[in-house]
Amino acid sequence: METGTNIPDDLKQAVLEIIKPTVAERRNLIGIQEELATEVKAAAEKLGAPDVLVKMVGSAARGTWLSGTHDIDTFICFPEETPRKELETLGMAVAREVAKLAEYAKDCHAEHPYLNIVFKGFDVDLVPCFRVSSASHIKSAVDRTPFHNDFVKARIKGFEDEVLLLKQFMRGCGVYGSELKTQGFSGYLTELLIIHYGSFENTVRKACFWKPGERIDIMQHSKIKHDEPLVIVDPTDPKRNVAAALSLDKFCMFIDFCRDFLKSMEIKFFFPACFLPLKDKEILQRLENRRSTQLVVFFRTPDIVEDVLYPQLYKMERSVAALLMEYKFSVIKTGVWSGKNETLIMLELISGILPNVKKHIGPPIWVKEHAEKFKEKYDRAKEVFGGYIENGRYTVEIQHKYPIAKELLEKQLINCSLGKNVKHSVNEGFKIMENAEICTLKDPNFRVFLSKWL
Amino acid sequence: METGTNIPDDLKQAVLEIIKPTVAERRNLIGIQEELATEVKAAAEKLGAPDVLVKMVGSAARGTWLSGTHDIDTFICFPEETPRKELETLGMAVAREVAKLAEYAKDCHAEHPYLNIVFKGFDVDLVPCFRVSSASHIKSAVDRTPFHNDFVKARIKGFEDEVLLLKQFMRGCGVYGSELKTQGFSGYLTELLIIHYGSFENTVRKACFWKPGERIDIMQHSKIKHDEPLVIVDPTDPKRNVAAALSLDKFCMFIDFCRDFLKSMEIKFFFPACFLPLKDKEILQRLENRRSTQLVVFFRTPDIVEDVLYPQLYKMERSVAALLMEYKFSVIKTGVWSGKNETLIMLELISGILPNVKKHIGPPIWVKEHAEKFKEKYDRAKEVFGGYIENGRYTVEIQHKYPIAKELLEKQLINCSLGKNVKHSVNEGFKIMENAEICTLKDPNFRVFLSKWL
Repeated sequence: METGTNIPDDLKQAVLEIIKPTVAERRNLIGIQEELATEVKAAAEKLGAPDVLVKMVGSAARGTWLSGTHDIDTFICFPEETPRKELETLGMAVAREVAKLAEYAKDCHAEHPYLNIVFKGFDVDLVPCFRVSSASHIKSAVDRTPFHNDFVKARIKGFEDEVLLLKQFMRGCGVYGSELKTQGFSGYLTELLIIHYGSFENTVRKACFWKPGERIDIMQHSKIKHDEPLVIVDPTDPKRNVAAALSLDKFCMFIDFCRDFLKSMEIKFFFPACFLPLKDKEILQRLENRRSTQLVVFFRTPDIVEDVLYPQLYKMERSVAALLMEYKFSVIKTGVWSGKNETLIMLELISGILPNVKKHIGPPIWVKEHAEKFKEKYDRAKEVFGGYIENGRYTVEIQHKYPIAKELLEKQLINCSLGKNVKHSVNEGFKIMENAEICTLKDPNFRVFLSKWL
Repeated sequence: METGTNIPDDLKQAVLEIIKPTVAERRNLIGIQEELATEVKAAAEKLGAPDVLVKMVGSAARGTWLSGTHDIDTFICFPEETPRKELETLGMAVAREVAKLAEYAKDCHAEHPYLNIVFKGFDVDLVPCFRVSSASHIKSAVDRTPFHNDFVKARIKGFEDEVLLLKQFMRGCGVYGSELKTQGFSGYLTELLIIHYGSFENTVRKACFWKPGERIDIMQHSKIKHDEPLVIVDPTDPKRNVAAALSLDKFCMFIDFCRDFLKSMEIKFFFPACFLPLKDKEILQRLENRRSTQLVVFFRTPDIVEDVLYPQLYKMERSVAALLMEYKFSVIKTGVWSGKNETLIMLELISGILPNVKKHIGPPIWVKEHAEKFKEKYDRAKEVFGGYIENGRYTVEIQHKYPIAKELLEKQLINCSLGKNVKHSVNEGFKIMENAEICTLKDPNFRVFLSKWL
C-alpha cells in the first residue's frame, strides 16, 4: 500500500541540494550561452549568412539541467526557403568558424551533419536547422527542437525543481535517457509530465496506476492511435508520440519504482548504492550457486556511436537466443554489455549440453500428404533412433546436430542475422566463453554488470 | 504411393494357411461346443431352471477365430423377468455344476459374476445373462453379446477368411484387442468392418484415408455424436459406438500400417519379426548413444486383472510425468511395463539434473493488485537469486526445490494422484532407478520392451 502522506519537503530539499545548479554554476552557463550566441552570429555575418538566427535549446536553456552536466544545444536556424545543400555547407561552415575557438571539435551526422565541440569546458552541439512556421511542417527532425523549447519555456517557470526531482528519480531508476541504449524517458518527456501532472509527487502517484496504452494529450489535438506503451502526444506536433522510444520494460520499471518509493520515501531512490565489481572468487561462488550454464559471445567493440551500436547489439542478442532455442536449448535470460574495447552478449541456459536424442514431432497421420512426406523423409534419414505415433502424430527420435551449445555458437554464429557493423566485427573474430572462463574478462565495468547478472 | 494392384491371392493364401483353423480343429471345436451346450442344459434342468437357453457366441461360434486360440464364450440365457439376484445365484450354480467336469475353474466378476473354466483344453467363459427382446433394452452389458452374435452370423457367411486376414493384420500392427491395456480393435469391430467394406483389401484401402471422426453406420439408424476417433454405430443398438475403446494412437497406427502395407505387400506385416531381449551390454551402449536420462519407477505388480490394472498404470504414467513437468523437467517420453511380479513406469528426460536457479514469471506490472502481491511474496522469500522485469512482467530467479529428478520422485511420488490398487502397492514400497541401474532388471519381457524403448 502506498502511504497517503506527502513526500516530505526536507527529502526534496536534500535531493535538490545535490542536483540543482548553484547560482555561480547558473551564471557561468548563461555567460557561456551568450558568448556562443555572439560568436555564431558573428561567424554567420562573416560568411555571408546574416539572416541566420541563433537559438539556445535543451535543458540548459530552460533551467532544467542537472548540476554537473555541461551540455549546451545551440541551433543555427536558416530561413525555411534555404536549399538543403546550402543549409548543410553554410551551416557547417558557420559551426566550424565558431569551433576555431573550441578546445575540441568533431563532425557528427544524424539526419544532417552537425558539429560537436568542447567550448570552455562545455559539451556543445552546433546544429544547423530550418526555421519553419510550425513543428508539423518541419523539413528535418532537428527543426522540431526549437518548438519544444518554446513550448516548455512558456510553461515551466516555477516548476524547474519538480523537473529536476523527476529527472534524478528516473536516473535512480535507470530509465532516464531516450538514447537507443537506454530506451527510457527523454528530458523533454519529463518536462511534459510535470506540465501535465503539475508536480513530481503527482507524477509519481499517477504513474503507479499506468497501464500500457496510457495516453496524455496536453493540447487535446490528436486522435491518432499509437502502439507504444506510453503515448504523450507532442504538443507541437499532433502526429508524434514523444514517448515513442520508451520500451515496455522501462515503462514498467518506472511504474514499479514509483510504487516502491511511495512505500518508503528514502533518498536512496534518487541515489542508489553502486554495485561493486565482482572478484574472481565471487564469480566462481555465484556460478556454483546457480549451477546453470553461462555463455559469453565476445568480440571487439565496433567503432560507432552508441545509437547505432546498441540496436545492433539488441538484434544480435535476439538472434543468438533464437539460434539456441532453434536447437532446443532452454534460455533463461540474455543480456548485452559493451565497453570501450570489448563487447559481449551474455546468455544463461538451463544447460549447455543436451542429450544426443531429440524428439521431433511431425504432422497428424490423417493429413495424408504431409504425413507421407514426413514419413518418407525420416525412413531414409540416417541417425534416427526410432519413431512412434503420439497424440495422432508421427514422432521421431533423431540425433541432435549440436548437443553442445558452445559448439553450436562457434559453428553457426556467423549465420545469425546481424547488423552491419557488428557483423563486420564478429567476422574479424569472436570467442565463446563458458562459465568459469568468464573470469578472464577483467574490465571492472563488466564486473559491475556481472554483479547484477549473477 | 500405394500401388493400384490387388493384394496377391497367394499372399492371402499363405497367411490363411497359418491362421485358419484346420478341418480337424474346427470339428473338434464344434464337438466341444455341442458337449458344453448339452452339459449346461442338463445342469439347468437338474437345478430347476428348465427355461434357460444356451447360446454359443464369440468368434468360435461365428467361424472367425484364429487357429491356435481356444476361447469359447457360452452364454446361459435366463428369461427377462428373472430377478437379478436369482439370475446371479442360479446362473452361477448352473455354471459350477458344469465346472465339475472342468480341469480348472475361477470365479470372475465384470458387471455380473461369471465363471472361467478350462474344459478339455479350451478356455471357456460361462456367462449368465438376460434374454431381452432387443439390444437396446439390455439389463446388463453382457446381454448385448447374443445380439452381436446373431447380427454377425446372419451376414458373415463366405467372408470368414476376410475377417481372419484383418484380425491377423491387426495383430501384426499391434492394434488387435479392445482390452483397456491395448485400446485397439475388438473382434466384433473387425467383423463389422468386413461386413461394411466387403473385404480385407477394401478395408485396408479405405482405412488409408480415415480421419478422426470417421463414421460407419451400417443400419443407418443413428445421428448421435461421438467424440471417439472412429465411430462404428452398433447395428444392434444405435446409441452405442462399437469402437469406443479404440484410442487415437491405435487408430492412427492402423492407418499408418495400412499405407505401409499397400506400398509393399509382404507377409511380414502379418507376422512381424520378434524383438529380442536386450543384453546388459546393449542397454549400456544404447544409453550412451542417447545421452538422455532414463528413470524407472519400480514396484510390485498389484494382484488384479489387467482391465483394472492398466487404466491405473496409464493414470500413474500421466501423474508422474505431470509431477516432473511441474518441477520443470523436460519429459521426452513415458511408458508402462508390467510383468507377473514387477511393474514399472518408464520416463525419458532431457536431463535428470536442473540448475539450482529457476526462472519464475509473475504478473504484468500494470495488473496492480496481483503485481503487488507477487512482489511482496518474493521480496520476503528466502532463496531468491534476483528479480527483474521482462516483457512487462515481474520475473524472479528462485531456488529449484528439486533440481534432481530422482530425488523429486523419491520424495513426492506418494503425493501423485494414483489409482487405488497401484497406490496400495506403491505405498508398500517403490524404487527409483536411473540409467545404468536399469540393468538390475532381468525379466526378459522387460528387456524386449526396452529394445523398442531405447
